[in-house]
Amino acid sequence: MTGLRRLVLFLALLTPEPLFAQSTTHPLDGLATAEYWSVYDALQSAGHLTPETKFTSVLLHPPSKATVLAWTPGQPVPREADVVLLRDSKTYTARVDIAAKRVVEFGELKNGQSAFLASEMFGADGYIKKDERIIEALRKRGISDLRTVSCSALPVAYRAVPEQATGRVGFGSCSRTHGTYHSWGRSIEGLTFQVDIAAKKVTSISDADTVPVPTSEQNYEEIPDRPRPNTTPISTFQPLGQGFRIDHGDISWQNWRFRMRIDPRVGVVLNLVQIVDAGRARSVLYEASVSELFVPYMDPGNGWNNRAFIDAGEFFAGVGFLKPLKPGLDCPAGATWFDGQTISEDGAPRLTSRLACLFERATENPAWRHLQGSEVYGRPSRELVLRSAATIGNYDYLLDWRFEPDGTLKVAVGATGVIETKSTTMTAAHDAHSGPETGQLVAEGVFGVNHDHYFSYRLDFDVDGTSNSFMLNRMVPQRVDNDPMRKSIWVNQPVVAAREKDAILDIRLDQPSMWMFMNPSVRSSLNYPVAYEVMPGATAKSILSGDDPVQRIGAFSEHQFWVTRYNEAERYAAGTYPTSSDANDGLAVWTKANRTIENTDIVGWYTLGFHHITRAEDWPVMPTMWHEFAIRPFHFFNKNPVLDLPKSLADH
Amino acid sequence: MTGLRRLVLFLALLTPEPLFAQSTTHPLDGLATAEYWSVYDALQSAGHLTPETKFTSVLLHPPSKATVLAWTPGQPVPREADVVLLRDSKTYTARVDIAAKRVVEFGELKNGQSAFLASEMFGADGYIKKDERIIEALRKRGISDLRTVSCSALPVAYRAVPEQATGRVGFGSCSRTHGTYHSWGRSIEGLTFQVDIAAKKVTSISDADTVPVPTSEQNYEEIPDRPRPNTTPISTFQPLGQGFRIDHGDISWQNWRFRMRIDPRVGVVLNLVQIVDAGRARSVLYEASVSELFVPYMDPGNGWNNRAFIDAGEFFAGVGFLKPLKPGLDCPAGATWFDGQTISEDGAPRLTSRLACLFERATENPAWRHLQGSEVYGRPSRELVLRSAATIGNYDYLLDWRFEPDGTLKVAVGATGVIETKSTTMTAAHDAHSGPETGQLVAEGVFGVNHDHYFSYRLDFDVDGTSNSFMLNRMVPQRVDNDPMRKSIWVNQPVVAAREKDAILDIRLDQPSMWMFMNPSVRSSLNYPVAYEVMPGATAKSILSGDDPVQRIGAFSEHQFWVTRYNEAERYAAGTYPTSSDANDGLAVWTKANRTIENTDIVGWYTLGFHHITRAEDWPVMPTMWHEFAIRPFHFFNKNPVLDLPKSLADH
Repeated sequence: MTGLRRLVLFLALLTPEPLFAQSTTHPLDGLATAEYWSVYDALQSAGHLTPETKFTSVLLHPPSKATVLAWTPGQPVPREADVVLLRDSKTYTARVDIAAKRVVEFGELKNGQSAFLASEMFGADGYIKKDERIIEALRKRGISDLRTVSCSALPVAYRAVPEQATGRVGFGSCSRTHGTYHSWGRSIEGLTFQVDIAAKKVTSISDADTVPVPTSEQNYEEIPDRPRPNTTPISTFQPLGQGFRIDHGDISWQNWRFRMRIDPRVGVVLNLVQIVDAGRARSVLYEASVSELFVPYMDPGNGWNNRAFIDAGEFFAGVGFLKPLKPGLDCPAGATWFDGQTISEDGAPRLTSRLACLFERATENPAWRHLQGSEVYGRPSRELVLRSAATIGNYDYLLDWRFEPDGTLKVAVGATGVIETKSTTMTAAHDAHSGPETGQLVAEGVFGVNHDHYFSYRLDFDVDGTSNSFMLNRMVPQRVDNDPMRKSIWVNQPVVAAREKDAILDIRLDQPSMWMFMNPSVRSSLNYPVAYEVMPGATAKSILSGDDPVQRIGAFSEHQFWVTRYNEAERYAAGTYPTSSDANDGLAVWTKANRTIENTDIVGWYTLGFHHITRAEDWPVMPTMWHEFAIRPFHFFNKNPVLDLPKSLADH
Repeated sequence: MTGLRRLVLFLALLTPEPLFAQSTTHPLDGLATAEYWSVYDALQSAGHLTPETKFTSVLLHPPSKATVLAWTPGQPVPREADVVLLRDSKTYTARVDIAAKRVVEFGELKNGQSAFLASEMFGADGYIKKDERIIEALRKRGISDLRTVSCSALPVAYRAVPEQATGRVGFGSCSRTHGTYHSWGRSIEGLTFQVDIAAKKVTSISDADTVPVPTSEQNYEEIPDRPRPNTTPISTFQPLGQGFRIDHGDISWQNWRFRMRIDPRVGVVLNLVQIVDAGRARSVLYEASVSELFVPYMDPGNGWNNRAFIDAGEFFAGVGFLKPLKPGLDCPAGATWFDGQTISEDGAPRLTSRLACLFERATENPAWRHLQGSEVYGRPSRELVLRSAATIGNYDYLLDWRFEPDGTLKVAVGATGVIETKSTTMTAAHDAHSGPETGQLVAEGVFGVNHDHYFSYRLDFDVDGTSNSFMLNRMVPQRVDNDPMRKSIWVNQPVVAAREKDAILDIRLDQPSMWMFMNPSVRSSLNYPVAYEVMPGATAKSILSGDDPVQRIGAFSEHQFWVTRYNEAERYAAGTYPTSSDANDGLAVWTKANRTIENTDIVGWYTLGFHHITRAEDWPVMPTMWHEFAIRPFHFFNKNPVLDLPKSLADH
């Protein structure tokens, strides 16, 4: 022990709190700049960083739930990070104690690989375009100016070819950028190849049919016409400011209380979502976030059969899928903005602005109303929107958490951006009744390929405490005899799911049920267990074969809802390391254990999905299409909780 | 012929246009004051109005579609009215030529009866409370002050008892109003009776268990607490006014054009919904409105087994279910308001204010956006909301038509108001797992009975013309062989429905399909038939038995979607005269004919439904719960139709 360390230890013993507790950091805060550098330093000191080592991701390793729930401000904050490194095609995982600047765990990852780095995908352009076979294939297509060609290598999430067992294998294709400012809608079809990313070389080529690169319009911005007329200005004003408060990361709005952080992998993470009821903060969710995305395309052709994207786990692990929001477009200009810390591939933290926004929205809807006699009574409503936007190559997703005054939390996904297209020799659908069945022509020579979008939302309910049960309230038809008025009713039959397999659910209109997380130990004033209901929206389930490698990785999409026993290691619906994996992780694997889920800490997983057959209207950029679901209190409050809203939006 | 009539006829022959064409009336306008009086005069002149005759309804009898489509402003306007009269328990229907003040058709209705009048339902209070058996039954319950008791008689929509064949039969119950300003939540259970409305007497009584009338809180307005804090004022301003225009009833907003009228029976009716595309007005819908409501309760007990309401056809036919909207609550104070004409039971027109409102809403969402490179491109959106509100006794429904700039039309129902409750001896749920299965306790002694809500929307699509086809675009799994990447995809298989039974549809997540109205004779620039898609939202189907009399009347609720061959007589999903009927009319009856629906004039019928298990939060008034569906263009435009939106909401 050095003299300095002895002195520090001595001082530490004198002070009532450990030195590292001076910070106001909350245990669930995202990592800060100094913490990223501590992680870097720890790995460097331990000799894990060679010059070639790339950082895939550095994520907060959340403390145990018990630790967080026992924590109070001023107490020491345990801080750890999960790190993924990539070196010589090998993936290493580490856990680092940030305060101690110490590597706690380190090892090589088997049964899966690091997510793909931007440098692997887009850095491939250079060597791909030096390959003589590629050059010749392009020349055959009349393309010799390679500066107007852009090539990339994409991962696949499952181990489809043997080379993936030991190496980083990319599946490549090119597009042409000449004459445009972006390359969507300009794919060079028929030419696909496999690359060895470490060796920086093309290992095999498939050069099939030559398809001309379309030249039809794909410019969504430079519109020659003047804007449509009669769109008079419309503005929202809040002269006394917005109605929410943020204090050391605690966000309060009306009776809601919550925290949020921006996680580079899954984006906005809500924590400690509570509702103040008669002066008491009551827990609803310990944590909630997107957990994974799965976007399989429905074309078996070369260069398309590998497109089945596991967007959170497979890509951009360091910088994440969240991208900056634009004031006045994505959120009102007066919104409150949240920056986020991500990392570059060399391990340095990178501050990105406006990765989320928070704003109040005047819905112009009543929170409740009733006409009694000739008078209408009611209260106007508003909502609090926490929004972020993911851009994953072509697609953009607006990701909303919408807090309602009545305790409802709406979750919404708005899909927009540019659809993935395949160049085709078709210039017009010959006949919609006998045309190709894998998509639709959206412009001359531009074919929008059928695909699905699935989002898995991880909802760690802690309704009035960590021990919850999952209850199905089934609506069951019942015969009525000897009644001239009726021959049938339905009755509600509550069933508590005992094990995980009892709670793997699909929506069936002929067998309706309500899905609820309830606390069997906490009763409402009427003696019902307090509960929160999950209310599905319009959604979809995957109809791919269960043995399809794609579907095995994205297996969460087969069902609308899952419930698991809480396990802090189970955060990602398609597994932590899906890339080049063998589908050995994720919801479908965990629930094989069929653990008991009654009156214990449990987690819900909602699949928000939609099939997408494209249309001309989706080109060259897609009008935003929203899908939603919601959670809402059910016997959680003892009466309507919005009787006390102000009578006018102008009141306060 | 009198001298005066000769003179008028002579003048009419001299003028190029008939006298009655001077008006700017559109053939689909709602009836005006003078027209109601013309109807009255025609019936009076023809001797159909005795002093006892009550008017049930006077509705516009729309001209034939061919007449309307051929009409141009200045041309003669054919105007007719459909009238329902009630006299001596007999129902008479009439058609009146308004301009000629002539009764064209008149006859007694068989196989059904007039909807119930307010005077029949609430006028029963007087004689019910004079019945000695009722007085005794109330005294037994400790209630002797009959001024604080309110009794009413409800219809049933189907012929459940033989007396309905010849008479007007009401099913009655009472509630107690002492100590409150409304009687919801104060039912006097156990005492039910049947009344002969014409004879004004109670014909039979059932006096079962005595249940105390609850005294728990049901006051939603006088809240002792101060409003919740920190709700800062929020206001929307449009300094240059709203962006829509109304000219002789033609409403234009951005590229939308439509007309609307308020029909006393079904509320807001949209007509001639068009979209201007490159300067050309293109038809989307000829007409759209709510067609019927069905709200069955799930309690087989006396006084509840008759509660299965056919809300549009069975009640309030003269005044309709629409009730006035409140500025600043239901719609922004600066909205444009529409009055409506209805009739009183004596046949006199009655002007009611604010039955619908129209306003622009800043959604704070982008119409589209994309991050390309490091820049976000996109256009902020807004929407036009046409709103009305129905109050049907206890329940309130907000009924929205939301026009989106991209050609999407969203249809939304917001359910609020007061739930129907049954007084009970329960004061607390003994155990949610073994409690009563017909509902939930929502307050001490107040039991919210399980029920369903179904809305049938009639959507008379005329996509670019009247001859349309209904196409299912099925997504069908397909096996992929010998591919290391994939074992399955799904393909889209368009199928044109040949007959009505091919288009009776339910939502099944394991058999997804898209539903489209397309015009086989009009092609997009890419040679697809132009189409509009129906996009279901979260919804429900009835799970009552098909042989249940209730379900036979509300049979539309068994399926999510129906398509019929256009027939101007088929306007109401549960039939024109459901009251005391034998389920001999409506969607399930018409479609038995299984008419051809290909390339002809067809109509779509969407069922928006939800099951409702109540909760404490729904009491004493229910937070608004929204359900939606939408229609959207599909290869109707040749590209994204909102590229030309202004870049800022402040632009114009």
